[in-house]
Amino acid sequence: MPSKTNNSFKGIKAQKNPAKGAVILKAAENIFAQKGFHEATISDIAKNAEVSEATIYEYFSSKEELLFSIPAETIHQYQEKNLEILEYIQGAANKLRFLIYRHLKLYASNPDYANVVMLILKGNRNFLKTEAYKIVQRSARNTTQVLEEGIQNGEFKPNLNPYLVRAIIWGTIEHLVTRKSLFGKPHDLLGFADDIVNTIFSGILMPQKEPTINVNVRMKS
Amino acid sequence: MPSKTNNSFKGIKAQKNPAKGAVILKAAENIFAQKGFHEATISDIAKNAEVSEATIYEYFSSKEELLFSIPAETIHQYQEKNLEILEYIQGAANKLRFLIYRHLKLYASNPDYANVVMLILKGNRNFLKTEAYKIVQRSARNTTQVLEEGIQNGEFKPNLNPYLVRAIIWGTIEHLVTRKSLFGKPHDLLGFADDIVNTIFSGILMPQKEPTINVNVRMKS
Repeated sequence: MPSKTNNSFKGIKAQKNPAKGAVILKAAENIFAQKGFHEATISDIAKNAEVSEATIYEYFSSKEELLFSIPAETIHQYQEKNLEILEYIQGAANKLRFLIYRHLKLYASNPDYANVVMLILKGNRNFLKTEAYKIVQRSARNTTQVLEEGIQNGEFKPNLNPYLVRAIIWGTIEHLVTRKSLFGKPHDLLGFADDIVNTIFSGILMPQKEPTINVNVRMKS
Repeated sequence: MPSKTNNSFKGIKAQKNPAKGAVILKAAENIFAQKGFHEATISDIAKNAEVSEATIYEYFSSKEELLFSIPAETIHQYQEKNLEILEYIQGAANKLRFLIYRHLKLYASNPDYANVVMLILKGNRNFLKTEAYKIVQRSARNTTQVLEEGIQNGEFKPNLNPYLVRAIIWGTIEHLVTRKSLFGKPHDLLGFADDIVNTIFSGILMPQKEPTINVNVRMKS
């Protein structure tokens, strides 16, 4: 439930005209995805949003603030919905499956957003200092909590390293989404969801052969 | 063996003074890692390499060509050595373990290189058009071949998707190395090698309980 998130994030809701703020943000996402951050100009974004450059500066103080506001809005909504749905899912394995699917869906349904996050934001050190990045971190904690839950309730192996498993899951998704942003493939990101879950869950090695069972039955004479 | 690689890459060996080319490349790697690509200047690199700016342009036509030459040299040497060693390793699982370890070691021993690759090159579309990128692709094929070998010889599960398993392995490594470049941790990248291998190989779910075995022994009366 939203009340549980204890989340002070205001984002574009705090602006005098939130709808216009959202239009500008969507236009910026689109221009950054097409041109990259350094090549994109505020003039490009103004044209795309059908507002004046001066209007953009009423809402965002710089090109970089615009860039950093893109994931803030999206991740905030994504995170709220995750918490809402997680309450209704039983078992850590099922919750993990849900989070993997949701994460892939976020990028699959928003290719411009995927592009901005994977090709521009991931290498930006300044982003790490922002309020927006704190929302990303909060969302990362969901995965860790689910992994810890699964270790505690015996669904996952007791010696599992939650930090590493999260790196495996997020790394795999980021790798596939980056390739899609750069090469346009894999085309069907969501089609990988089950395969990712099954491969990580079951490991890739053939199971060891069942040991031979010797049954010694002593006959009474 | 090098003769097997059928590799026409010349790199800085083709330059009139390869040692000087290598010094310039190392200086560029260092400056790009510190400042990022857009903020770094040829003047910074010239100072760091202790040569004139004119000398740099004798060896590399632009700042971008310098950037793209960094992975070309490193990955070429890395790939040659991989092929040399792979010949002596038996079994696909062992070969995969070696490739994971080598990949981590490449980044762990070269933090500037890791920084340039993860924070600058990964989002650069122009890099995909270069000769250097072809060497990266050749190196990626090693992993796929090892995975296919393991599926064929029964070490790996027959329904495994080599493309996805490669994405899991590379994605995990890239995720950890990116975090190390951005946050300075995890500190000990190589310490993750065994854990990555074991977690991916064995899956994360608890194995199903052994089925109860009913042994019916008929006693001769």
